[in-house]
Amino acid sequence: MAKEKMVSQITDMELDFAQWYTDVCKKADLIAYSGVKGVFVYRPYGYALWENIQHILDGMFKESGHENVYMPLLIPESLLQKEKDHVEGFAPECAWVTMGGSEELEEKLCIRPTSETLFCDHFKDIVHSWRDLPVKYNQWCSVLRWEKTSRPFLRHREFLWQEGHTLHATAQEAIAETEGQLECYADFCENYLAMPVIKGVKTDKEKFSGAERTYTIECMMHDGKALQAGTSHYFGDGFARAYDIRFTDKNNQLQVPFETSWGLSTRLIGGIIMTHGDNSGLVLPPKVAPIQCVILPIAQHKPGVLDAAAQLRDRLKKAGFRVKMDDSDQSPGWKFAEYEMKGVPVRLEVGPKDLEQNQCVLVRRDNREKRVVPLAELETALAETLQAVHDGLYAKAKANLESHIFAASTLEEARDLQKRNGGFIKTMWCGSEECETKMKDEAGMSSRCIPFAQEHLGDTCAICGKKAEKMLYWGVAY
Amino acid sequence: MAKEKMVSQITDMELDFAQWYTDVCKKADLIAYSGVKGVFVYRPYGYALWENIQHILDGMFKESGHENVYMPLLIPESLLQKEKDHVEGFAPECAWVTMGGSEELEEKLCIRPTSETLFCDHFKDIVHSWRDLPVKYNQWCSVLRWEKTSRPFLRHREFLWQEGHTLHATAQEAIAETEGQLECYADFCENYLAMPVIKGVKTDKEKFSGAERTYTIECMMHDGKALQAGTSHYFGDGFARAYDIRFTDKNNQLQVPFETSWGLSTRLIGGIIMTHGDNSGLVLPPKVAPIQCVILPIAQHKPGVLDAAAQLRDRLKKAGFRVKMDDSDQSPGWKFAEYEMKGVPVRLEVGPKDLEQNQCVLVRRDNREKRVVPLAELETALAETLQAVHDGLYAKAKANLESHIFAASTLEEARDLQKRNGGFIKTMWCGSEECETKMKDEAGMSSRCIPFAQEHLGDTCAICGKKAEKMLYWGVAY
Repeated sequence: MAKEKMVSQITDMELDFAQWYTDVCKKADLIAYSGVKGVFVYRPYGYALWENIQHILDGMFKESGHENVYMPLLIPESLLQKEKDHVEGFAPECAWVTMGGSEELEEKLCIRPTSETLFCDHFKDIVHSWRDLPVKYNQWCSVLRWEKTSRPFLRHREFLWQEGHTLHATAQEAIAETEGQLECYADFCENYLAMPVIKGVKTDKEKFSGAERTYTIECMMHDGKALQAGTSHYFGDGFARAYDIRFTDKNNQLQVPFETSWGLSTRLIGGIIMTHGDNSGLVLPPKVAPIQCVILPIAQHKPGVLDAAAQLRDRLKKAGFRVKMDDSDQSPGWKFAEYEMKGVPVRLEVGPKDLEQNQCVLVRRDNREKRVVPLAELETALAETLQAVHDGLYAKAKANLESHIFAASTLEEARDLQKRNGGFIKTMWCGSEECETKMKDEAGMSSRCIPFAQEHLGDTCAICGKKAEKMLYWGVAY
Repeated sequence: MAKEKMVSQITDMELDFAQWYTDVCKKADLIAYSGVKGVFVYRPYGYALWENIQHILDGMFKESGHENVYMPLLIPESLLQKEKDHVEGFAPECAWVTMGGSEELEEKLCIRPTSETLFCDHFKDIVHSWRDLPVKYNQWCSVLRWEKTSRPFLRHREFLWQEGHTLHATAQEAIAETEGQLECYADFCENYLAMPVIKGVKTDKEKFSGAERTYTIECMMHDGKALQAGTSHYFGDGFARAYDIRFTDKNNQLQVPFETSWGLSTRLIGGIIMTHGDNSGLVLPPKVAPIQCVILPIAQHKPGVLDAAAQLRDRLKKAGFRVKMDDSDQSPGWKFAEYEMKGVPVRLEVGPKDLEQNQCVLVRRDNREKRVVPLAELETALAETLQAVHDGLYAKAKANLESHIFAASTLEEARDLQKRNGGFIKTMWCGSEECETKMKDEAGMSSRCIPFAQEHLGDTCAICGKKAEKMLYWGVAY
């Protein structure tokens, strides 16, 4: 039997992954297009997902001593230009404000594409002595980058993110911060989003404009493409020198501090969709799902059903679950499809016969496993099931990641492997940018990272054949 | 003895209230100036205050069925222009983006001064049937208005706020929403910020551009000036018609829905400062204070003091209080002044002698009341004291408000009362805009609101002498 391209309401992911992705974003009510090209509306369900991500990360940041601030939206052109590498990287994609009211501005202002320059300008004012260090700030905001192409969550002209910016007395402390925040991101992805990550360092070619070193976590999507899920940058004292930030140390000597920044954005929502989703729609990791459990009354016109369902909802809410009861007049079939599309991890069905026996039917979204649960044990059963869904999603994603890592010893082999399977291709690499460019030009892959977990695959660079000491992951990335 | 202008670190509020205000904003580390005129940096302590405000309001909004979304930052000029009154009000203070990267844009984009136009554009896409209504959305974001003058919190070119936008099937329901959200703001101001409010309706002259009716809560500052603390607007079907939003009702007839919006911003932080502050600095209402209780170890080098202080901190944190222990090497005197400046509601002093007797000293910020508390009773004592501080602040602010309301029967009387006492001057008013303009020109007062709590002060307008049925509050406002 020929496969139909449309599975229920959406395109079959195995036939057209890109279209499947766009369908899910739209049908699950996550996002909408706006009147400005490349700019999107975060709809309530998509925004609630982001709020849950924010809530968890914000707690982690605060626990490790970071404080939230809010810096200006606009950067004067002269301020942006102080760090040469940085402005070269970002100026081409800045949106510029040139008029205030009906007057032309004396100096044009760019809408922040990232806020290093603004934080530096502020640090200069507030840091004077060793007593003022470290400064560990974070901000939640939107940034704007005038991209030529766009895709829901993955590439917006305007997107939501958090950006951490810290300042330290020593390089050692700043590096520890950079690495610590990468670990925080990895922990978050794996333990809250059920997304396994590869941790590593970007090559000089791929690092952040102005950074001395960029750390990254890279994830593997269902279709074999890579997604950069979060980055953490060590700046050395480059920005501090460019922005004239100085402090007097305990010996009353003037010193230059060391800086970091790290960011994670709503593109991670794209990552969640492409890691866990299936042909019925979204599949959400329970720890960030806006609705963890939906209660659907069956034969809700029968006496007692709605009351019992409402009671269950209240009980589960009280126990700390994010729960919704849908008593709308849509059919059960419609509701099943709707909450599958929305990726709600657990569905509870409550009908007259279940109630007679003091039980309900619990259905897992990820694997459709169905079981009968006595009402008296519902809280425990739900908590266990949500954890099981998380573990199941993680195991499945981990298997997908592991089955998408291939070793190659020549460029040709790397290209063929990528073509055949997608995924991460690992090779030895001499360290030269020329070889990266060649891999990009001839095999269509960018370097994803030099992973922390190094392996010795050989002694020579897969591209040029010269001596090589580092193993690199290559991939086609979103 | 002549009064000194500077009281400790700040200007005497009775001698120069404006300078006192700026001093407090700066010395309490709430805010800093940025490189762009009229744009400020929200520092950690100021931002934490806003986060607490957000957290409470967000809970109230969600409890009443509102959902958060995030709409674009940029509004195409053509979209802004669809509602005539609205664009007339806002266009003169828009900042315009005219370039993306190095290219001139085909249509200039304004940075949102408020987002009615964007919500309407989105509502048009998502609302089709009575089943889609009501839509009750809110967003937390920053907006930009190209003001000529600026003042910390009170008037920024860029400021943080929330804006609610809702759409309803009937005018009645939309009006109930508008009024309900005003009540929500009033409840929040009175019960969380200890700021008594006057509730009322704006005159046509003072209403929001594009609104049919604007409701407001008005507060009285320490210096006798008024502060508009929150507004809620009923739009009728004006915006919906201008933006072509339609829905089919249950009888399959095409209908035009009714709209509201309501907003509250970080200017409320200015209101908190000017309502409760004193000559030692900020005085924060306990329910939103970033630190509710600071623990200061006395003679902290003595054995056991720091450990005991840390234990108390952990105990109080566990009990749900926002608490900080300051074991820095600054002197107790410095610390006393610092946390008074920051307006921390309660200070706990823990020294060796206190510990011997299993007690500590509890000092209220608002009235300096000091008492000894057995450690075993600390949680109860602290909770009671925080409530007492809230009640005390509210009572003091209420007394200030009530002592600043004066009735007048002529414009001259109104002008003299304002000149002598500041405050709200209440008069009868005929309803004409001419009389409002005259009051503004000759007595320097704008109309603040037509209060819900009407009084019959007479039968004629204080300005023109014609028949008058409404009582109006006038004032000099921030």
